Amino acid sequence: MSVEKILIPDVLAHRYASQEMCYIWSAHGRVLIERELWIAVMKAQRDLGVDIAVDAIEAYERVKNQVDLESIDQKERISRHDVKARIDEFCELAGYEQIHKGMTSRDLTDNVEQLQILKSLHLVRKKYTAALNSLSQWAHRYQNLMMVGRTHNVPAQPTTLGKRLAMFGQEMLQAFLRLEELIDNYPMRGLQGAVGTQLDQWVLLNNNTDALKELGERVRHHLGFTKVFNAVGQVYPRSLDYEAVSSLYGLSSGISSLARTLRLMAGQELVTEGFQKGQVGSSAMPHKMNMRSCERINGFHSILNGYTNMLMGISGDQWNEGDVSCSVVRRVAIPGAMYTMDGQLETLLTVLNEMGFYESVIDQELSKYLPFVTTTTILMEAVRRGSGREEAHEAIKTNAIEVVRAMRSGESTINDLPQRLAADSRLPLNEDEIRAVLQDSKRFVASSAAQVNGFVKQVEDILNKYPEAKEYQPAPLI
Amino acid sequence: MSVEKILIPDVLAHRYASQEMCYIWSAHGRVLIERELWIAVMKAQRDLGVDIAVDAIEAYERVKNQVDLESIDQKERISRHDVKARIDEFCELAGYEQIHKGMTSRDLTDNVEQLQILKSLHLVRKKYTAALNSLSQWAHRYQNLMMVGRTHNVPAQPTTLGKRLAMFGQEMLQAFLRLEELIDNYPMRGLQGAVGTQLDQWVLLNNNTDALKELGERVRHHLGFTKVFNAVGQVYPRSLDYEAVSSLYGLSSGISSLARTLRLMAGQELVTEGFQKGQVGSSAMPHKMNMRSCERINGFHSILNGYTNMLMGISGDQWNEGDVSCSVVRRVAIPGAMYTMDGQLETLLTVLNEMGFYESVIDQELSKYLPFVTTTTILMEAVRRGSGREEAHEAIKTNAIEVVRAMRSGESTINDLPQRLAADSRLPLNEDEIRAVLQDSKRFVASSAAQVNGFVKQVEDILNKYPEAKEYQPAPLI
Amino acid sequence: MSVEKILIPDVLAHRYASQEMCYIWSAHGRVLIERELWIAVMKAQRDLGVDIAVDAIEAYERVKNQVDLESIDQKERISRHDVKARIDEFCELAGYEQIHKGMTSRDLTDNVEQLQILKSLHLVRKKYTAALNSLSQWAHRYQNLMMVGRTHNVPAQPTTLGKRLAMFGQEMLQAFLRLEELIDNYPMRGLQGAVGTQLDQWVLLNNNTDALKELGERVRHHLGFTKVFNAVGQVYPRSLDYEAVSSLYGLSSGISSLARTLRLMAGQELVTEGFQKGQVGSSAMPHKMNMRSCERINGFHSILNGYTNMLMGISGDQWNEGDVSCSVVRRVAIPGAMYTMDGQLETLLTVLNEMGFYESVIDQELSKYLPFVTTTTILMEAVRRGSGREEAHEAIKTNAIEVVRAMRSGESTINDLPQRLAADSRLPLNEDEIRAVLQDSKRFVASSAAQVNGFVKQVEDILNKYPEAKEYQPAPLI
Amino acid sequence: MSVEKILIPDVLAHRYASQEMCYIWSAHGRVLIERELWIAVMKAQRDLGVDIAVDAIEAYERVKNQVDLESIDQKERISRHDVKARIDEFCELAGYEQIHKGMTSRDLTDNVEQLQILKSLHLVRKKYTAALNSLSQWAHRYQNLMMVGRTHNVPAQPTTLGKRLAMFGQEMLQAFLRLEELIDNYPMRGLQGAVGTQLDQWVLLNNNTDALKELGERVRHHLGFTKVFNAVGQVYPRSLDYEAVSSLYGLSSGISSLARTLRLMAGQELVTEGFQKGQVGSSAMPHKMNMRSCERINGFHSILNGYTNMLMGISGDQWNEGDVSCSVVRRVAIPGAMYTMDGQLETLLTVLNEMGFYESVIDQELSKYLPFVTTTTILMEAVRRGSGREEAHEAIKTNAIEVVRAMRSGESTINDLPQRLAADSRLPLNEDEIRAVLQDSKRFVASSAAQVNGFVKQVEDILNKYPEAKEYQPAPLI
Repeated sequence: MSVEKILIPDVLAHRYASQEMCYIWSAHGRVLIERELWIAVMKAQRDLGVDIAVDAIEAYERVKNQVDLESIDQKERISRHDVKARIDEFCELAGYEQIHKGMTSRDLTDNVEQLQILKSLHLVRKKYTAALNSLSQWAHRYQNLMMVGRTHNVPAQPTTLGKRLAMFGQEMLQAFLRLEELIDNYPMRGLQGAVGTQLDQWVLLNNNTDALKELGERVRHHLGFTKVFNAVGQVYPRSLDYEAVSSLYGLSSGISSLARTLRLMAGQELVTEGFQKGQVGSSAMPHKMNMRSCERINGFHSILNGYTNMLMGISGDQWNEGDVSCSVVRRVAIPGAMYTMDGQLETLLTVLNEMGFYESVIDQELSKYLPFVTTTTILMEAVRRGSGREEAHEAIKTNAIEVVRAMRSGESTINDLPQRLAADSRLPLNEDEIRAVLQDSKRFVASSAAQVNGFVKQVEDILNKYPEAKEYQPAPLI
Repeated sequence: MSVEKILIPDVLAHRYASQEMCYIWSAHGRVLIERELWIAVMKAQRDLGVDIAVDAIEAYERVKNQVDLESIDQKERISRHDVKARIDEFCELAGYEQIHKGMTSRDLTDNVEQLQILKSLHLVRKKYTAALNSLSQWAHRYQNLMMVGRTHNVPAQPTTLGKRLAMFGQEMLQAFLRLEELIDNYPMRGLQGAVGTQLDQWVLLNNNTDALKELGERVRHHLGFTKVFNAVGQVYPRSLDYEAVSSLYGLSSGISSLARTLRLMAGQELVTEGFQKGQVGSSAMPHKMNMRSCERINGFHSILNGYTNMLMGISGDQWNEGDVSCSVVRRVAIPGAMYTMDGQLETLLTVLNEMGFYESVIDQELSKYLPFVTTTTILMEAVRRGSGREEAHEAIKTNAIEVVRAMRSGESTINDLPQRLAADSRLPLNEDEIRAVLQDSKRFVASSAAQVNGFVKQVEDILNKYPEAKEYQPAPLI
Repeated sequence: MSVEKILIPDVLAHRYASQEMCYIWSAHGRVLIERELWIAVMKAQRDLGVDIAVDAIEAYERVKNQVDLESIDQKERISRHDVKARIDEFCELAGYEQIHKGMTSRDLTDNVEQLQILKSLHLVRKKYTAALNSLSQWAHRYQNLMMVGRTHNVPAQPTTLGKRLAMFGQEMLQAFLRLEELIDNYPMRGLQGAVGTQLDQWVLLNNNTDALKELGERVRHHLGFTKVFNAVGQVYPRSLDYEAVSSLYGLSSGISSLARTLRLMAGQELVTEGFQKGQVGSSAMPHKMNMRSCERINGFHSILNGYTNMLMGISGDQWNEGDVSCSVVRRVAIPGAMYTMDGQLETLLTVLNEMGFYESVIDQELSKYLPFVTTTTILMEAVRRGSGREEAHEAIKTNAIEVVRAMRSGESTINDLPQRLAADSRLPLNEDEIRAVLQDSKRFVASSAAQVNGFVKQVEDILNKYPEAKEYQPAPLI
Repeated sequence: MSVEKILIPDVLAHRYASQEMCYIWSAHGRVLIERELWIAVMKAQRDLGVDIAVDAIEAYERVKNQVDLESIDQKERISRHDVKARIDEFCELAGYEQIHKGMTSRDLTDNVEQLQILKSLHLVRKKYTAALNSLSQWAHRYQNLMMVGRTHNVPAQPTTLGKRLAMFGQEMLQAFLRLEELIDNYPMRGLQGAVGTQLDQWVLLNNNTDALKELGERVRHHLGFTKVFNAVGQVYPRSLDYEAVSSLYGLSSGISSLARTLRLMAGQELVTEGFQKGQVGSSAMPHKMNMRSCERINGFHSILNGYTNMLMGISGDQWNEGDVSCSVVRRVAIPGAMYTMDGQLETLLTVLNEMGFYESVIDQELSKYLPFVTTTTILMEAVRRGSGREEAHEAIKTNAIEVVRAMRSGESTINDLPQRLAADSRLPLNEDEIRAVLQDSKRFVASSAAQVNGFVKQVEDILNKYPEAKEYQPAPLI
């Protein structure tokens, strides 16, 4: 154990998040974003009359990609001030001292962090769209595969596998809508000064309020925001961070419900997340195909819950024009939440790539329960053929109870309700007629396929907006 | 203690929420909403060919306001089934048995609860608009009143009182935008049946998928939703409840920041929430004007946090097509959150009606700190008049340090920095010139007034959309 | 809708909590506790020299059970002060004015609420002990019933049903330990006055600090606390409320894990929560035995999470000597949490009374998976009989993979691995020998029974401390 | 941006936690703990008859400190299995293959992580004791310094500065008690095998249940736990992780209340956290002494809230014998919480080292408000000297109201109530007599000093248990 501080990597970034997401939040990536901001401000200031030479701006642009973190660290160790160290580094490289004019530290950091958030949300949107695309393909493929639908975790009515998947897709779509709204309306803090009155920029622009407004608009436009806040304090309202991260929790909910249901289905041997890797588990236990990735997806959901709560703690807690009680919280929770969401999406995309359904087991389960879940249809048929409703109902009920008893007690391993009903003189149906009812699967799944088509259509609309998502492939999981 | 169960009123409904909000969630109000839903469904079913007589529908409509909770309770005590009891009651009153055709319990309850949520959100929107209106009037009134802006809870730079209020209004506006999006996109679950395949309605409509879709649209339109879900299970995704309540937490954040800052300001005697009730506290302690209502506002914020967390627990936890693990949670958290938000808004509106600012104390505080927070301007003036920058800076610094020392040690009770600077031969400014700098308040508050105007304008746009909010007045607080 | 405010019952108290818990938190129950406190204080004050007549104390004691809430309400409507109304009522009844001497409102309310909390915790302890008792009986009954143990929700290794139940009992025991510590160390706030300096009692006791201490001790002892705080402010630290309610979340965790696993087991038809009510579900769907109570138990867990979070929001947020920002939060969260815990325990006790396991289905499941989960033992046997390890391993693996493939593809519905292995010439075991391995169940469950015995013993120790729990029976669920 | 994954350091570990805490959770530190566990198990196994040579154990012990993370990583890249890589590394170094006998991965990882938790809690206990020590010294120093006590953030009654500090110390003591209970009762999971039946160890020990128990006890004792769980599954109950981290939230609450109050006091210029660094802020703003460290302390509190919530999400969610849905959550939340608590304590210790109070400003504030907060005493004096109670009360009230009005309106800057009361003919007191009342400070602070002494005594008892805490000094903050 050396004297140098032990380096502990961020576990979410290191093990789960993608290179692309990590880069946004890395020291290197942040320096680049900062420099973009400074350049954007200089350009706007110059256009509005501040005395900054074109040569200076060009000099900064030339060197902006020369990021030497070690050199910055050395400067910080001397000045004990991180922003100053990065200003000095950039100025030394460029040979000018023209950046950061009329700016406070927060004019830099708040806006840079918002840009990191916005870039992260864009990345999330792309991957979420990719996941919807993949899920919609699965739903489409299985839109007519009838299976046992379950409520209270026990068989209830038939559905189709495609419809079940579309159901979770529906939850994802709802959250996706929120994400789009958030991105479309995400306001930049702007250059607001120490208490939000924009004093220093205003002075710099000769007390010209119109120019001040124009400055804000130009910087905003340059950086890709749709709006800039009108009136904030030293900091932008921290409930905006809550909005951003709580939207991730929403995005994670449909994914998490899907993963939880896949885990339940694995318990019935209906699905495996490792189908593409071969149909068997470890050599010691070939039957055992653990849903580790789906479990991990649910774990990510709990993590997002925690990060959302961290940000809830600093929302609605602004004292006067602000302070730094939120600082350490945001440092932990915002990138943490982004890595988690990213890791969850990478994991989901892998599951969607590699999973497979055991159609035969799905059929076996259906055979076992279909006679139970279709008794109301059989009753209707019996009545249609002249049976008295009460008598028919009683006949079905007694036989069904007997079948349940026999199966639960171990007397019988198959559901022979159709045979029993055929044999019951109170009912005017023979076994073939009953089997015919059971096999008319379309009848039991009602609008399932139509709903799947509706889902597929909604996803197509999104893909048309973000076509780059079609190509996205997750990195291999650790 | 009688054998009859002790009646414990819901504390939020009883003490804090308004009559209007309570009604939406009352047993009585709920029965009415249910009956509206049943009638809407019958009408749509009849239009689409289901055999329901016009007379029957009319009969239900005639009696729909006859709500006898005691009679319903008696029926429930016999049948042990709450939905059945309410069906029977309504049918007995009407003399028909035509409601609830092809509907499951959840087809009723999920949609009814969504309607309660939607009505609650409309009410919240109205009151929030009223609060923005009142806050914007305060901001406008004080847009030019210079005061000490604080960061880290200590004086930083001047701002105006109006600008400070607009700053919290800005946070409220951001959350309001989210509320509007939520209401505009809030999808109704629809008549989806036991596992979401719409089996029973589909059979009822002769397996006609188009008619099924039309049924959904008609009911949706009748009830005032903008959308209906395409594909859900036994229940709609519970993350939608999270979305609704988490938006309330967002709404509460700006309010909570405002309340917290008012409490801080009361500690400096700058504000009282009881100004309209006379400027003094209790006779025993006339100086003591407790910010009880603002404290309560902050308390409501923590409660909303808890309800949001309850709903986070059931988001992303759907098992297959659903179950009732969410049921008790939703029963507690959704109305609880609505009462809380309503109570917070009632409290806020009362504070906004009754509060007042001590302008003289605001001025005193400013006098005390202005010389400190304007030293950079004095420095600029000194340099403009020929002083060397380094020498002037040193002169200001040493004098300022001396003033701080004298005031903190009790030697001096006033800030005599202007006199000291005037007396310092290193600076070419006399006391009048320094005082002139200090009095040029517009100079220090920069774009404060312009920002207030921007805020007022944004609120006006909202008021134009929801003009009924202008008249809203809170009920007296307990 | 009358002008009178609609009465909305507290849903948790009304539907789920027991009469006994509701009484503690009812207006009536609270008045009684308050009067107990006042009387305790008077007695102690008198003993320490304050001029209070014995007759007065006796008069108060005589009338203390005469609780007329309507009369108190009328007084409050006039005075607008709730504590004053209750003082006046009690004094009028007694014909004296001797209570509340030297006490502030918080000296009354904080201590009263702590007493409500303590009484609630005692009640929780009794019911939790009853639940442990019942669970331990189940564990004991099934300590040797071998079943499929699952990890990742898929079969892993055999366990016994009793051991599985003891495993959840273990989690409950751990939390129970915490509850006992909490009760044993729960400190009373005491009579601390407006800012915690005990000014008024100190003056009342002639500035006698020893008498002041003695006063605290006497009141504490009279009310049944083990400790009194040494130094608090206007209020006791609100993190103590967090401690109390977070311990409930701990208590709820083992219960919740158990309920969740029972729901999973119901999905395999291994268990029903309605066994005692007959082995079948509704007449329409006799196979369908919904785990509604277990689902509700999980719902209660999410509610407790939310209440814990409400109290987290007021922990660590004390401003100076305190204020009422915590007030509305505590009003909602503390009784709410107690009702929830109580309702969860009532529900659990009902489940434990009425549930049943389908031993035959447990056996069927075991038959299906036992050959897989015991392959390592078969390997050992083969090696013991002279087989080469590598060859035997390969033989088992290929056969197992083939069985899995056959079963998943629908070719085979039973696990014929034993036959296949017997037929494989690479292995020196015949089918009888393999079956013998499979039937030697004690061999596979190792220390299961011993662990169950350990659990039973630990529960016995608790029952010996709280024998009244043995008789406790839950009220019927709604 | 290279192909190699960007390394992002854990921000909490890197910036805030101490070297000692980081080491416990570092890869290096973890390897050492694992090796300790393996050696402890081998020794116990050997003692109980398992065939392991003494030489082998000695060989492992000799090399246990040779940790080459790069070599382990290389092995993991090949085997794709982290535990196997570390087994192989250790065996290669020792030249034997005797470790990990009869152990599953969780037998290793769960126990190792518990040991990390336990070591972390010990470290927290030491630093918390150090903080209590420092706080108690401050309280003792100022036990008699009278100051304005505030409720609702406005002046209420006098207290002493020492008493105020002891009040927060009281909250800390309560949480400390919980920490001690937790450490004293923290149970080790033990070697429980794949589903908790201890199958593999049981076979290894020739089906000897007593030996199995003894094995558990020996390993437990060797590692320093007080207990071992009797019956768990694949994993120990995750609510134990919740218990551990929720206790940190409790520990953080008193600290957070203290920090929040110090921030409020800084707003009144009563305190600075940088007193030891010189009494002035930056040269530009010498009056501005930001409470950044106290703000950070409050931020840490919100972070702990979030980590507690992450663990709440996996408590009560065990499926059958367990799975890895908790894995990623624990990886993030447990070390995260430990770094946070550690960082908060380091920050607190620094604040306690460097802060200072402005006694003169405290006096000035007291002078301003004392006449108000002592009116009841003046009333008593007036009555004692023959004044009619009603008349005296009216006189005090009208004068006090007038003073408030004058001060708030700016007419008067000092509290001249004493003069006014002296001049009022309705009161029989002259100014000297009134001043005498005001100066009798002991009278107003009642038991303040006694409470401080009580607090100091409680802290002494703790220091006697953990004397190493006396010497602890925090590392410099970043």
